[in-house]
Amino acid sequence: MERQTAASDIWERDLGRNSANYVPLTPLSFLRRSAAVYPGKTAVIHGRLRYSYAEFAARCRRLASALAKAGIGKGDTVAVLAPNIPPMLEAHYGIPMLGAVLNALNIRLDADTIGFCLDHGGAKVLIADREFSATTEKALAKCKVKPLLVEIDDSEADYAAIGGKRLGDLTYEQFIAGGDPDFVGDAPVDEWDAITLNYTSGTTGNPKGVVYHHRGAFLNALGDVTFFALHPRVVYLWTLPMFHCNGWCFTWAVTAIGGTHVCLRRVEAAAVFRAIEEHGVTNLCGAPIVLNLLAHAPESVKTKFDHVVDVATGGAAPPSAIIAAMERNGFRVTHAYGLTETYGPSTFCAWQEAWDELALEPRARVMARQGVTVLTFEALMVADPETMKPVPRDGQTIGELMLRGNRLMKGYLKNPEATAEAFRGGWFHSGDLAVWHPDGYAEIKDRAKDIIISGGENISSLEVEEVLYRHPKVLEAAVVARPDEKWGEHPCAFVTLREDAGAVSPDEIIEWCRANMARFKAPRTVVFGPLPKTSTGKIQKFLLRDSARNL
Amino acid sequence: MERQTAASDIWERDLGRNSANYVPLTPLSFLRRSAAVYPGKTAVIHGRLRYSYAEFAARCRRLASALAKAGIGKGDTVAVLAPNIPPMLEAHYGIPMLGAVLNALNIRLDADTIGFCLDHGGAKVLIADREFSATTEKALAKCKVKPLLVEIDDSEADYAAIGGKRLGDLTYEQFIAGGDPDFVGDAPVDEWDAITLNYTSGTTGNPKGVVYHHRGAFLNALGDVTFFALHPRVVYLWTLPMFHCNGWCFTWAVTAIGGTHVCLRRVEAAAVFRAIEEHGVTNLCGAPIVLNLLAHAPESVKTKFDHVVDVATGGAAPPSAIIAAMERNGFRVTHAYGLTETYGPSTFCAWQEAWDELALEPRARVMARQGVTVLTFEALMVADPETMKPVPRDGQTIGELMLRGNRLMKGYLKNPEATAEAFRGGWFHSGDLAVWHPDGYAEIKDRAKDIIISGGENISSLEVEEVLYRHPKVLEAAVVARPDEKWGEHPCAFVTLREDAGAVSPDEIIEWCRANMARFKAPRTVVFGPLPKTSTGKIQKFLLRDSARNL
Repeated sequence: MERQTAASDIWERDLGRNSANYVPLTPLSFLRRSAAVYPGKTAVIHGRLRYSYAEFAARCRRLASALAKAGIGKGDTVAVLAPNIPPMLEAHYGIPMLGAVLNALNIRLDADTIGFCLDHGGAKVLIADREFSATTEKALAKCKVKPLLVEIDDSEADYAAIGGKRLGDLTYEQFIAGGDPDFVGDAPVDEWDAITLNYTSGTTGNPKGVVYHHRGAFLNALGDVTFFALHPRVVYLWTLPMFHCNGWCFTWAVTAIGGTHVCLRRVEAAAVFRAIEEHGVTNLCGAPIVLNLLAHAPESVKTKFDHVVDVATGGAAPPSAIIAAMERNGFRVTHAYGLTETYGPSTFCAWQEAWDELALEPRARVMARQGVTVLTFEALMVADPETMKPVPRDGQTIGELMLRGNRLMKGYLKNPEATAEAFRGGWFHSGDLAVWHPDGYAEIKDRAKDIIISGGENISSLEVEEVLYRHPKVLEAAVVARPDEKWGEHPCAFVTLREDAGAVSPDEIIEWCRANMARFKAPRTVVFGPLPKTSTGKIQKFLLRDSARNL
Repeated sequence: MERQTAASDIWERDLGRNSANYVPLTPLSFLRRSAAVYPGKTAVIHGRLRYSYAEFAARCRRLASALAKAGIGKGDTVAVLAPNIPPMLEAHYGIPMLGAVLNALNIRLDADTIGFCLDHGGAKVLIADREFSATTEKALAKCKVKPLLVEIDDSEADYAAIGGKRLGDLTYEQFIAGGDPDFVGDAPVDEWDAITLNYTSGTTGNPKGVVYHHRGAFLNALGDVTFFALHPRVVYLWTLPMFHCNGWCFTWAVTAIGGTHVCLRRVEAAAVFRAIEEHGVTNLCGAPIVLNLLAHAPESVKTKFDHVVDVATGGAAPPSAIIAAMERNGFRVTHAYGLTETYGPSTFCAWQEAWDELALEPRARVMARQGVTVLTFEALMVADPETMKPVPRDGQTIGELMLRGNRLMKGYLKNPEATAEAFRGGWFHSGDLAVWHPDGYAEIKDRAKDIIISGGENISSLEVEEVLYRHPKVLEAAVVARPDEKWGEHPCAFVTLREDAGAVSPDEIIEWCRANMARFKAPRTVVFGPLPKTSTGKIQKFLLRDSARNL
């Protein structure tokens, strides 16, 4: 057959977009739908409070209406400083309904950084929980913007115990009471419009403002639904901060499927186990520290439940001991990986049926890998960041983990250089160094800046840490480079011992490492003590590097 | 606070789309991902054949490559006339990889209509299974286009028994053997590009060519994943024709989640039960006739299985007797509703927890409703088609069911009048007459042209049919308007009795109806015999109306 002129114009003529067959993608449609389909179903649980989907949607519309009356419109920033309580969830809908942008702030940040974020994002309203009034007061005194302050005075909080005073005279409940429960917000005109602003926790320098869009939020939420095979009977417990990548977009995903959000001001083991028992929690997410908390909880607070609770964790690979303890307690752990720039999980360690029969240790080893792209994320590659050539899939060659797809940020706010740098070569550069296994699974070996070069050999600090974590007396460990006259650098381990460890010598630790990995990779210095952490719980390796340099 | 100038430009400046953070939505990404994540997993089962995801993807790429060599490119039409066998599934990927358009033809159509479709769609290649060689030969003799004929000679088919001769000398396996298994097809440049062409079965006149796009196919497939909460261990049995709205987009959805497609040349009860037992089928879809077939299957072919098989059905509400029989046999039925124009299910009868305790009859009544929008479909309304005003949600007032969202067709090919008519007022007009219940569920009462007007009162033919179906001796029933000197029209029932019914008089049927519904709605004429049907199993009411007029 001869190549003919493509007849493709017949597929376009009179077949354009119209208001019936084209709707911008936005997670706002999830709330509209669940309020229509499940009006009487419990959408939100918080302490003694229960909001049905009809009530939850009405509260979101009231918030949007009240904000509109306060002058907020398209492109305006509304900051929220609150734990995982209903107003934070409502902010994920009420603010975008106006085309405004939600900036959910990390409650663990210091006042200076909060002030920086308020200024950089240009906050016009700050909705802040009383618990953080000290920080709020200081931040507002320092920053240049003068946002309207709306204070959350949570009926379920014991402020006498947790602290926090009232700073002004406008509470959140008063504010939204003045809003119209039937308010119709503007749908975004363009699905590329900004929906939220999330500041990276950045271990050094000022945080960067990551901008998410409606299309990405919609697709990430649907990806979350497929990740856990969520269904309308899902009961999702908020152990992951909503200020963290908008709760990995589960703020929208749970609503999408018509499930129930269970709020939680503080992540405490007893409260988590109680919620599982009382509300039949089916799913939760959290940093490794949450798993630690649950795995090591005293037996007295552990409740028995006869269903499996699905848990996603990210930030670091779950060690085998934690996996085993979680499984014994009725949890099933999935390891995911992502960054603020990817709206949360971009890859996960997708289960292979062949692993069903694996024993714990080899299972933990395959599960430790960051894995493959989640559904609706387009592609990953491990490549040389200079040549952009993929590394061989040999499980050995180190490259940078790079990502591509609709679940990536628009870019960094007011920072075109950082945006261009992050997206150079048409891929997002994660800054994480990884190997690519023959089965296509990526495994992170280190942050680019955390690799240790000793005698010309690369040593992955993560690999050394993994061995340290397997030592029965080690609770936490971090490894950084220490300058070394002979080798250039050598691995220096900072170790927190378990409470019941008793006396342990540095040599015992070093010998353990030498016995369990290539000798040249074993630390030559071991320091015992607590580890410095960021507000999101990340270990601050730059401080440890300073310490190692000055030992 | 004063209304200030929106600062929205900061959200756009230097934050545009780039090749890292924007990818056109297309179901082709699902195959790429599953081939990468689950290369060794069984993607397709057909008789003794097994294709892993790596093999399945390679076959699709071979098809694309072979078509490219044959001169096929963007916007070219490739027609396929085949049952639910692997080449049909491969066509859903291999053809769009080139930006070409798949036209899956209904295997039950006559040669004239097939010829019309080939001409109207401008088919350049026809891939046709030998079983339909008689139709193919006639259609090709009549149509103006001269497509390249590629014949499927299925190793798993018993052509001696089912008929079918070879017409040419190019088989599908030979054709794709000449293709490159590593061929890289062009991703669609624009997610609005056409992906498939599906002709409506149209009870009168020429079929209309419904054009789907990549974005819609992607979103429908994800919607399907959420519909059944599909997960990677799903085993999907192909009892719904793939030529029917591309198998309601499950052709793409099952691949998206990395599940297993089980092919089936013919839907026979024994084969379905055997597949459930042999392959652990978890999900299937089908017209009511498929449920009938399974519910009434002889005990000898029924297999026992200890998991629940999820079944979606559409086209007509499942009667309570069928629901009960299906549940007894281990199936769970969900009622969905859609049209070719909506890529399959647009609404479904979403389960409410309050229904868990309902007895069979009231449960069947709530389940009979077409319900609410599926996730990723934007909105439905029941409205007056003239004023576009929604009807009250009283379960009584009749209006037209209208739909809006990204899961709607681009329009009808080369038919701007029909497209404009279908989308008038910014909503898609289904042509189905429905009521809107207080809980937001829509329930179809009739096709617009099937309503009977007797003494000025509207009578829903569906309502009369429902009562007829409940009669223990009735197998099938259809009700149409018969001209009536006194009343204008009256309901005339055409009834097929069950084999074991024995003698039944028209009066017995009429009395049954009078006893079970408003008397004026009961039929005044009853005719016994088989019902005329279209190739997709729809009852041809226009033929019955002719008969009723001439009685």
